[in-house]
Amino acid sequence: MSEGNARDSRAGKDTVRRHNLSLVLRTVHDAGEATRAGVAARVGLTRAAVSSLADQLLRDGFLTESGKAFSGQAGRPGTVLKVARTGPAGLGVEINVDYVSVCVVDLAGTGRVRLTEYVDNSAPAPGDVLARAARIAARAVASAQEQDLRPVGAALALPGLVSGGVVRQAPNLGWHRVDAEGLFAAALTDVRPDLRTLPVGSDNEANLAALAELWFGGMGGVRSFLYVSGEIGVGGALVVDGALLPGAHGFAGEIGHVVVDPAGPECRCGARGCLEQYAGQLALLRAAGIEEAAGPAAPGASVSGAGASGATAAGAVGAGPVGTGELERRVRAGDARAVAAVGEAGRVLGLVLSGAVNLFDPEAVVLGGVYRGLLPWLAPPADGELGGRAVSGMWAAGGDRLRAASPSADAARGAAGRVARDVLADPLAYGTAKRS
Amino acid sequence: MSEGNARDSRAGKDTVRRHNLSLVLRTVHDAGEATRAGVAARVGLTRAAVSSLADQLLRDGFLTESGKAFSGQAGRPGTVLKVARTGPAGLGVEINVDYVSVCVVDLAGTGRVRLTEYVDNSAPAPGDVLARAARIAARAVASAQEQDLRPVGAALALPGLVSGGVVRQAPNLGWHRVDAEGLFAAALTDVRPDLRTLPVGSDNEANLAALAELWFGGMGGVRSFLYVSGEIGVGGALVVDGALLPGAHGFAGEIGHVVVDPAGPECRCGARGCLEQYAGQLALLRAAGIEEAAGPAAPGASVSGAGASGATAAGAVGAGPVGTGELERRVRAGDARAVAAVGEAGRVLGLVLSGAVNLFDPEAVVLGGVYRGLLPWLAPPADGELGGRAVSGMWAAGGDRLRAASPSADAARGAAGRVARDVLADPLAYGTAKRS
Repeated sequence: MSEGNARDSRAGKDTVRRHNLSLVLRTVHDAGEATRAGVAARVGLTRAAVSSLADQLLRDGFLTESGKAFSGQAGRPGTVLKVARTGPAGLGVEINVDYVSVCVVDLAGTGRVRLTEYVDNSAPAPGDVLARAARIAARAVASAQEQDLRPVGAALALPGLVSGGVVRQAPNLGWHRVDAEGLFAAALTDVRPDLRTLPVGSDNEANLAALAELWFGGMGGVRSFLYVSGEIGVGGALVVDGALLPGAHGFAGEIGHVVVDPAGPECRCGARGCLEQYAGQLALLRAAGIEEAAGPAAPGASVSGAGASGATAAGAVGAGPVGTGELERRVRAGDARAVAAVGEAGRVLGLVLSGAVNLFDPEAVVLGGVYRGLLPWLAPPADGELGGRAVSGMWAAGGDRLRAASPSADAARGAAGRVARDVLADPLAYGTAKRS
Repeated sequence: MSEGNARDSRAGKDTVRRHNLSLVLRTVHDAGEATRAGVAARVGLTRAAVSSLADQLLRDGFLTESGKAFSGQAGRPGTVLKVARTGPAGLGVEINVDYVSVCVVDLAGTGRVRLTEYVDNSAPAPGDVLARAARIAARAVASAQEQDLRPVGAALALPGLVSGGVVRQAPNLGWHRVDAEGLFAAALTDVRPDLRTLPVGSDNEANLAALAELWFGGMGGVRSFLYVSGEIGVGGALVVDGALLPGAHGFAGEIGHVVVDPAGPECRCGARGCLEQYAGQLALLRAAGIEEAAGPAAPGASVSGAGASGATAAGAVGAGPVGTGELERRVRAGDARAVAAVGEAGRVLGLVLSGAVNLFDPEAVVLGGVYRGLLPWLAPPADGELGGRAVSGMWAAGGDRLRAASPSADAARGAAGRVARDVLADPLAYGTAKRS
């Protein structure tokens, strides 16, 4: 189809229909379910136009219909349209320092498969890490296919600066200029030659976790927020009016490297005294007196922030899940050193957050990763700093603007969700949703 | 005109024409000058439609035409359209701690009148400050009228948190919940009853200075930047893709209250160790060993960042222009204490800027106010911190991303320019541009 030539009226008509197919599909998606008349009323197209568009979407498998419902409009009751629960799906692959988590969502954004493996990704070469991630992804795809879901795209969530498909820098993985998309696609083709044409994208993990929070979390009407995730690194992302603020080079939100004390401990980024050195996972564990485990994690240990239904700990060697689980246990048990460590991290986090709030004036700050489970101990000292330092005075009222990330909204789900959103934005680009 | 009812085809047509009048006017504005055929080619309307729209804009005085130019299209050469240099104008009024600066711009955004008075605005009651500002504005309006310019709106630029026409808080003025727009409008009506219907808006001064930089400064292709202005307070604003990022409550960009040292000196905002206490004008003067002048400023002293052609120092009592002028003189003369004070402020500014750059990932940082003249001494230590701490590595290349604000792009011009932009966006709302 010649989209480029707007003077070709045939192409123009095709473009309009293509746009309207997406409009109808997104309207049904956003409403959860809707009749043809309901869609027509919402989008301002005629009932006949919507019927024709809906029929094509049904035929191609993007929508399903069932039952009868009164539309609230004159005329006969319509059948109810829903987004298909089978067919096109999004594949999200988060590669973090101490785990790989893969998520498959359907077009409605519902998580349908989750596979998490706790493995150390900081020691092996990037190619080996991505090859293992591809094998994990292939296992998740097999699970998805048993549910009649067919991934139409993959997105990688990576703990570093990602731009143009390349990881420019991921200090905690030790990566520098790694073509993550290319290596992953090649490795996936090795294990699943039938997926060799699967488009692969990538983004920073905090960006994708923030989008997951926006799309699938409990943000309610909040459309502008700062997302901060405590992992081995401390990631962040800014959401403004329901969209990610990428920054001029795609690198916005790097709150982990905001300086706390210019004479502080050395950071893996090369500078001194970054937030990560005070409120990252390793700093927290060190301050709490928890030794990093050198051996495999206990089976069934769960990683904070992975939001993993169906997570498995297969041969994990990373310290993360053991250590942070132990930290949470000690804090809950009232261990004085652990409580003090988390309190101090909360105070420092609050200092940096107050600066970010003064610069960015969000409606809320969402804390994910290890911070989620520690929020009852982190929030009071952080709120104290925010209340005293956020000049707008919006933060003096109390702690409801500092909130925990949703357990089910993590970077892998955000990555998978982004693929699903791409399908909703242009279903025709994905041909027919039905299995060929 | 009934704009609300899209089903009324007459109203719909009027809305389309109204939109197209703005489109033609803005196209001529952006091009500087253009023929009817040139406009038609640019906006995708027919030559006949553009002619009809241009004729109305000429008749109403928004455009003028002159000369002949070959359009590069077939047919006879067209006359050249330009935005009118007389008629509707924007009035901008900046009220800062130690001066009031008023600017009148024409529709093209060109500064046509500038009147600056160096006065202490922190001691008098807000109503008295705004009444004086209205008298200054009235004098500038008289000058504008002698040039056949007629202000069609005013905008106040204020050093504080401004929202819904109210100054919520301006610590350095000592203002708290001041209805600046209402008080200014009432005072202006007292001195100029004929201006009683003039619409008055308001915004934070750093926001308007950033817009002035975007519209009238030398930003070239840079569309995303962080603007930081050193005054008595340190103001800031974020520009993303050519638009101000307001924040959820209109309070984004408050970089002056980002914490440098939580145990540092007390700030007028109530917290401790804010950037303002290290890199604000008063901190700079104190560190340089320059006593604040208690008496009137020397006549003809110019305030940094006012960009004031035609500025007058009328009975000034503020220390600002004297002190900062003296600071610049001493630094240029190589006074060791002054150089050290500016260098240390640059280092601290660089620490805070590196955090802001990590969060926001701009293309550039623009330094205005007192920083503009001090840039050669501020920039090296600030660049040093940015080079070591900005994780994107975009800052390692050199100092061209840290730049001085344009001398002619300040908050008063941004305020006036915003009014002019409002006219360009909907000329019909301003009736006829010709004097009645």
